[in-house]
Amino acid sequence: MSARPAFSDWMQSVQTTIERGLETFLPAEQIAPAKLHAAMRYAVLDGGKRVRPLLAFAAGELFAADPAHVTRAAAAVEMIHAYSLVHDDMPCMDDDALRRGKPTVHVHYDEATALLVGDALQAQAFMVLAEGEDEGEGQASRKLAMLRLLAEASGSLGMCGGQAIDLASVGLNLSLAELEQMHRLKTGALLRAAVLLGAWCGKALTVADTAALDAYAKAVGLAFQVVDDVLDATADSAVLGKTAGKDAADNKPTYVSILGLAESRALAEKLRQDAHAALVPYGDQAQRLRELADLIVQRQH
Amino acid sequence: MSARPAFSDWMQSVQTTIERGLETFLPAEQIAPAKLHAAMRYAVLDGGKRVRPLLAFAAGELFAADPAHVTRAAAAVEMIHAYSLVHDDMPCMDDDALRRGKPTVHVHYDEATALLVGDALQAQAFMVLAEGEDEGEGQASRKLAMLRLLAEASGSLGMCGGQAIDLASVGLNLSLAELEQMHRLKTGALLRAAVLLGAWCGKALTVADTAALDAYAKAVGLAFQVVDDVLDATADSAVLGKTAGKDAADNKPTYVSILGLAESRALAEKLRQDAHAALVPYGDQAQRLRELADLIVQRQH
Repeated sequence: MSARPAFSDWMQSVQTTIERGLETFLPAEQIAPAKLHAAMRYAVLDGGKRVRPLLAFAAGELFAADPAHVTRAAAAVEMIHAYSLVHDDMPCMDDDALRRGKPTVHVHYDEATALLVGDALQAQAFMVLAEGEDEGEGQASRKLAMLRLLAEASGSLGMCGGQAIDLASVGLNLSLAELEQMHRLKTGALLRAAVLLGAWCGKALTVADTAALDAYAKAVGLAFQVVDDVLDATADSAVLGKTAGKDAADNKPTYVSILGLAESRALAEKLRQDAHAALVPYGDQAQRLRELADLIVQRQH
Repeated sequence: MSARPAFSDWMQSVQTTIERGLETFLPAEQIAPAKLHAAMRYAVLDGGKRVRPLLAFAAGELFAADPAHVTRAAAAVEMIHAYSLVHDDMPCMDDDALRRGKPTVHVHYDEATALLVGDALQAQAFMVLAEGEDEGEGQASRKLAMLRLLAEASGSLGMCGGQAIDLASVGLNLSLAELEQMHRLKTGALLRAAVLLGAWCGKALTVADTAALDAYAKAVGLAFQVVDDVLDATADSAVLGKTAGKDAADNKPTYVSILGLAESRALAEKLRQDAHAALVPYGDQAQRLRELADLIVQRQH
């Protein structure tokens, strides 16, 4: 058993790698139209936890993926995530003035720019994923599969669909199953895409591998949301980096409003254990995925 | 020389084919989230002239493409176009209540839905283009190239970039070159993508083929905008299907505001001739492309 760097060092290394990748894959500020490019970079760089890239790298490590390939796939997923935040913050959606401790794009620039930033980032995500050194014909098929997965995870049967359900649910009493379904689409689909894209950069997966990654991603995806709800109900805005207490103010059904605080925390812990259980066949090689599951559940922001 | 069906019959046949394709490639209304899917279908189906699919089919015919493949590529381009109209009509952008003779999506539904419709349609476009029967490894590379082209044409160095420039130009005096650059990105890039994607569904292009298609697309793309400006200044809203006279009201620099009406019409005619000139090497096989160039310049809406 080889000695691994500390998790925090691994995380920092990945975050540095993905930051450099994102800087490279986004048009430079000086390139026309300069304001749009500056706003796109504002929306993406310097601030995110990079959970999705971390998941991609962890899954990539499990299947011996080339980090350069994972960087590209992770950057694409992160751009989709970043675009969704820009649009979600807009006045016609969640109407948020603060994100990652900074003014949101529509506040720092203007609404029209925010709209275009989201649109352009989505296109950029697919462009980044579709590019890359020509790895030969066998890899072209795999890259197409990656693009299909990202598109499906981002669209009306994924992230956008979940957001639509979320909007339609304001003021309603959702069952736990309905809440879970909304989260599964709104955030779970893209988190799952991050895990699978990272893994697909490596050796070919067996049916069992895919089932294990799916189970892991499902558990971690839901845990992420449960903890999000707990933090929204308990944390301080300064620590959170965004406006706390918005869920209750917006009359949104959450795990906390349905289960209460204690039950929600218990659920998050159960899901953390489910994530670990999915990785049992992989032993030590899955360590980073385990550590990420722990981070997602134990984080304070 | 074989007898061809009348242009109007060919157009109708393509429009029927693309309508069926779009109906198939969009999630059915009953699929959850139903409102979002209904709104996406509302935004795409029954109303457009389908200029981009027509260009794709015409180019495809020139290079002996399989119509089934062109349908898919054309549908993807049309979804990008449709999404851009939904977002462009929103209050923070052009703030239009009428489009293709119907209430715009944010008016018929709501702003949040319009935002998500645009977002989901963009993802759907890439998904549709990335899917399709497995045509073998050689085709996977070509499909990746098609995805890169569509992403580039849609993003900050294409359609979104042009829209950003357009927004920044309100109230300014643009030179003809600056106006042309804005249009080249805002509408020209996607029109060019339609032409090339259609052609790429067929036999492999030579360097000369690509240069000819580029020249054709450039001429037709600009002609489209010049005529758009002429119609905005002269047509009736009922005929146009959208609010006429908005350019002057919005203080937007246009071909008519820079060149005047007569010069603009002369420019459109010159561009039509440029489009024809690019197709000289192809003889009769390029007839539909010629007829489309004529349609674009001679249309009344």
